[in-house]
Amino acid sequence: MTKTSVSSSVDQLPAIQSPAGLKALPLEKLPALAEKIRRTLIETLSETGGHLGPNLGVVELSIAMHRVFNTPQDKFVWDVAHQAYVHKMITGRWDKIHTIRQYEGLNGFALRTESEHDCYGAGHAGTALSAALGFAVGRDLQKKDDHVVCVAGDAAFTCGPSFEALNNISSQTKRLIVVLNDNEWSIDRNVGAIAKYFNSIATHDGYADLHQKAAAFVESILGKGARRLAGKVEESAKNLLLPASEAKPASSVLFEEFGIRYYGPIDGHDIPLLIKTFEFLKKQNEPVLLHIITEKGRGYKPALEDPGKFHGLGKYNIETGETPSASKPTYSQVFARSITDFAKADEKIVAITAAMPGGTGLSVFKKEIPQRYYDVGIAEEHAALFACGLACQGLKPFLTIYSTFMQRAYDMIIHDMAIQNLPVRLCMDRGGLSGDDGPTHHGLFDIGYLRPVPNLVHMQPKDEDEFVDMLWTMANYEKGPIAIRYPRGNGPGNLPKEQPALLEIGKAEVISSVGEDVVFIAIGDVLELAKTAASTLAAEGVSSTVVNARWIKPLDEALFTNLAAKARVVCTLEDHVLRNGFGCGVMELLSTHGITTPVVRIGWPDEFIEHGSVPVLREKHGLTAENAVRLVKGKLGR
Amino acid sequence: MTKTSVSSSVDQLPAIQSPAGLKALPLEKLPALAEKIRRTLIETLSETGGHLGPNLGVVELSIAMHRVFNTPQDKFVWDVAHQAYVHKMITGRWDKIHTIRQYEGLNGFALRTESEHDCYGAGHAGTALSAALGFAVGRDLQKKDDHVVCVAGDAAFTCGPSFEALNNISSQTKRLIVVLNDNEWSIDRNVGAIAKYFNSIATHDGYADLHQKAAAFVESILGKGARRLAGKVEESAKNLLLPASEAKPASSVLFEEFGIRYYGPIDGHDIPLLIKTFEFLKKQNEPVLLHIITEKGRGYKPALEDPGKFHGLGKYNIETGETPSASKPTYSQVFARSITDFAKADEKIVAITAAMPGGTGLSVFKKEIPQRYYDVGIAEEHAALFACGLACQGLKPFLTIYSTFMQRAYDMIIHDMAIQNLPVRLCMDRGGLSGDDGPTHHGLFDIGYLRPVPNLVHMQPKDEDEFVDMLWTMANYEKGPIAIRYPRGNGPGNLPKEQPALLEIGKAEVISSVGEDVVFIAIGDVLELAKTAASTLAAEGVSSTVVNARWIKPLDEALFTNLAAKARVVCTLEDHVLRNGFGCGVMELLSTHGITTPVVRIGWPDEFIEHGSVPVLREKHGLTAENAVRLVKGKLGR
Repeated sequence: MTKTSVSSSVDQLPAIQSPAGLKALPLEKLPALAEKIRRTLIETLSETGGHLGPNLGVVELSIAMHRVFNTPQDKFVWDVAHQAYVHKMITGRWDKIHTIRQYEGLNGFALRTESEHDCYGAGHAGTALSAALGFAVGRDLQKKDDHVVCVAGDAAFTCGPSFEALNNISSQTKRLIVVLNDNEWSIDRNVGAIAKYFNSIATHDGYADLHQKAAAFVESILGKGARRLAGKVEESAKNLLLPASEAKPASSVLFEEFGIRYYGPIDGHDIPLLIKTFEFLKKQNEPVLLHIITEKGRGYKPALEDPGKFHGLGKYNIETGETPSASKPTYSQVFARSITDFAKADEKIVAITAAMPGGTGLSVFKKEIPQRYYDVGIAEEHAALFACGLACQGLKPFLTIYSTFMQRAYDMIIHDMAIQNLPVRLCMDRGGLSGDDGPTHHGLFDIGYLRPVPNLVHMQPKDEDEFVDMLWTMANYEKGPIAIRYPRGNGPGNLPKEQPALLEIGKAEVISSVGEDVVFIAIGDVLELAKTAASTLAAEGVSSTVVNARWIKPLDEALFTNLAAKARVVCTLEDHVLRNGFGCGVMELLSTHGITTPVVRIGWPDEFIEHGSVPVLREKHGLTAENAVRLVKGKLGR
Repeated sequence: MTKTSVSSSVDQLPAIQSPAGLKALPLEKLPALAEKIRRTLIETLSETGGHLGPNLGVVELSIAMHRVFNTPQDKFVWDVAHQAYVHKMITGRWDKIHTIRQYEGLNGFALRTESEHDCYGAGHAGTALSAALGFAVGRDLQKKDDHVVCVAGDAAFTCGPSFEALNNISSQTKRLIVVLNDNEWSIDRNVGAIAKYFNSIATHDGYADLHQKAAAFVESILGKGARRLAGKVEESAKNLLLPASEAKPASSVLFEEFGIRYYGPIDGHDIPLLIKTFEFLKKQNEPVLLHIITEKGRGYKPALEDPGKFHGLGKYNIETGETPSASKPTYSQVFARSITDFAKADEKIVAITAAMPGGTGLSVFKKEIPQRYYDVGIAEEHAALFACGLACQGLKPFLTIYSTFMQRAYDMIIHDMAIQNLPVRLCMDRGGLSGDDGPTHHGLFDIGYLRPVPNLVHMQPKDEDEFVDMLWTMANYEKGPIAIRYPRGNGPGNLPKEQPALLEIGKAEVISSVGEDVVFIAIGDVLELAKTAASTLAAEGVSSTVVNARWIKPLDEALFTNLAAKARVVCTLEDHVLRNGFGCGVMELLSTHGITTPVVRIGWPDEFIEHGSVPVLREKHGLTAENAVRLVKGKLGR
């Protein structure tokens, strides 16, 4: 088919409204469908933002899967389901794809409540193999016969849970199809032995023209006549699909040691080959892994040229791929710049990321001090333990992991870091509402899970300037584990001064004190809400003191008890769930001191917060100055 | 040496007081030292209890390590360091070994604060490889040359963090010695593909007489002349140490794929062979893994015959190995009996354990309903995800994991279970103080980490009878995730009635109500303290109402607010840290309803609680009826 004819058939193709619609298309139309989906994604996401690169990489895979299998009876379990956009378009959501990641629009990940075709949601990596095994065993126990297909990227295989699943699959089911979608990238370039291993397969001499050979073979043998040909042919097919000409090359051993039959690698953009291969795999009576090679950003030059940028991004110019230039540095950028500068003067500082050099800003550290930069892969548990070992040797590890992903390292924080009182610096980016990524990415639980942990110090800055002071304080704190949470994106804009200051642990800051009716105690950038609320109340004759708490643990006991004892109402503010949050800590403190001043608390309710922009969601859930004023006035009886 | 001569030389040997003392012994005395250590362990632990089996398995290993390496400069990182007793004896703690696991005695695990020879502590499995890599990289960065030796059991290799470490080792250091101590057991029999893999190596045809050959070879080649012989000889040694006669058998591929040179398997009870091998390995300039085969319970017949029992136990009769028979079933036993019975009538019930069929009691389920029993290895993350997949398929998974180990699955509880509102049953054994195991095993944080999680229901029974009602309620609850915590050992002894009752979610139980001065609200078996405190106060003319809360989430809002509004003091009691604990939840509730009745709280303070018996530690830290009375009276001004 020439380029022109593809193009014209693309224009003629209607949007697909269901998997049945896809199945009704003639096979030869599928490349045009792929092209149409690509164009739609590139155009739509230029307005909405989203995970463009990963989805461009799985267009053909998603088409082939829906051609061969039947959701919702068959189950597709997508690992870090940000590559499910194509699947969403095929399963009745084509017309809503322009709402993706928007408030009240489609979620950016697979979501059980959004469609019966989404059997499992995931925003964190490495969960799919285990969950898929649960689906498969659940099917087996109930003697059903649906297929379970799990799609996981190469980076997911650097992750402990994936390994734990591999260790269990072969002893627990005979029917599970794992697709290893290998684009040699996770969010950032893949690291470690597994990455090398996959790369050695993909760059194997035999691979260059393998998929053509395999395609021809599968076409000729497994086509219409496949059912007539039994075991022997299938055996040959297996061997051909393996990377080398010998029966079992070493490169297939890793999965085969786990009792999972390995096939591949094949070209993940060849729709007929994918279809034939899935038809073959679905008949197997043993767990199988299909290794496909795909291009992240396939079909869009800017995304191919900068896959890191196009993994997930906001609006961009379709022609050039350019994104609006940032007006000022984000918290992540301030973080990375600061600790890189500190590390130049302090050889003990080491930076650790779990596959997020871009997101955390640490690519700066990597570039300037590569010898003390460690990207351990999607391996938060290892990252935390590795940091503990480094701390035991007298180094100063900065363990930089988003608040929501730090949940993976929770046991290590208690069992290794806090019990042993090791000075590891926990830097929790995206602490607070993460916005359009939705509930899997909001960092709304870290105060709750860290505050009960003995020995641990925890803080949050009110702005960028204080943030740098806090990082400097962490760099110089040697007594035990110390954590900081800071929000996604920009702060109020008070940029760092040249020389950071050492802050006193557990000492809060009084921002303004014009009277004693109300004391506002805020942690983080919601301090701005407290200031506004205080102004509003002042205009109505209610006097307030506004405090920037700085420290979640330890709290400024003397200041808070002193102010609260005199006040008529205490109002706490936090970008965290209220249950076991900062305000709860303040209540505990006051109770311990026998202070009965009523406390009202501003924070997130006891429910998972949907996706949407931060201002919209704050307004909806009452994280506003107006709500603070309303609650305070309620207690004052006004 | 004949048996008699060993025996007499054992009697003559003094206790070893330091690694230097061990090094000063002639090589030929070391088997007698091993024998002496074994005798001491068998005798001592018969009185104190402890991890006998694992320690009998590593006597020769520990001796050889201290013979070759020099702690504290060199670092020994023990995985789940319950096998560090021998190491403790060698490093100056021989005379205190009789205090092990006793209050104010030696800790049952390696402990940094106990000795400079304990560089890293661990009570949870699978942390050692990662931590050891941190030690190694820390050494490399500081251009030191100490050796880092990590000892991990075969079961630790079923665990995600170990895999994440393997993926990172070869790209981050050239010098790390990993000892795989393979006794084909973890706490209970090992499961999954990795276990099969190790077993295939250990049972390899070539292994039977391999260690003799290897010993002779190493003796002749690597002895005094070793330094003169370079690369070629070492290459030959490697090949000989490999299990098959070919240069690189498939069985070594797994580790070699990770860039870690594999040696073994060798006999882990052959001291001279171990010494020579370590001498060889310490000269290597690449990460190495030495696979040793040991016998759990070596040298003690009862422990060899029942390694599961002798993994860790209380007092036993030295001659027979018999332990005092239990007077009544533990919570674990009640749990396992109940859900096994439920599962017989309900085909949807599935039991999952992470390598703890004995500890959790689930061996009963395994025996009676093997087809719905899943032991996934030491893999809590996978276990939780697997349960989520099963729940999606309409099954009723009972995920049975100690409270402290559930910390490993925290991200899955939030990200997979609660966000998707999947009805997984979280059964958290050892919820509360675990006693003589100490801080790594106390289950004192689960209320703190679960209460902020939306959609999750959480409860704790006052006794065994109520426990069964709660399990029955869980079995019949379909709306979302539901968790239960229950303590180690026995409850107050109210044994289950025949037909369990369905409890109303969030409905507490009033135990006694003789007046309104004080309301005691207790969760779990500390209800007994509340009853005692109420009696004491009654005798002094203070009237109380005693409530069994049953539910941690949701709280019985109507009852608690109603009682608290009328009372002069509220007293909460829990077997959990106070910070973000049950009492904190009660305070939040009262605050939300504008109730200012003072709340005093009984629970554990903000510090890691040491090891010791539960009564001793409760007394020390104020979890007593007396303390409740004292605090209440303080608030009453009496």
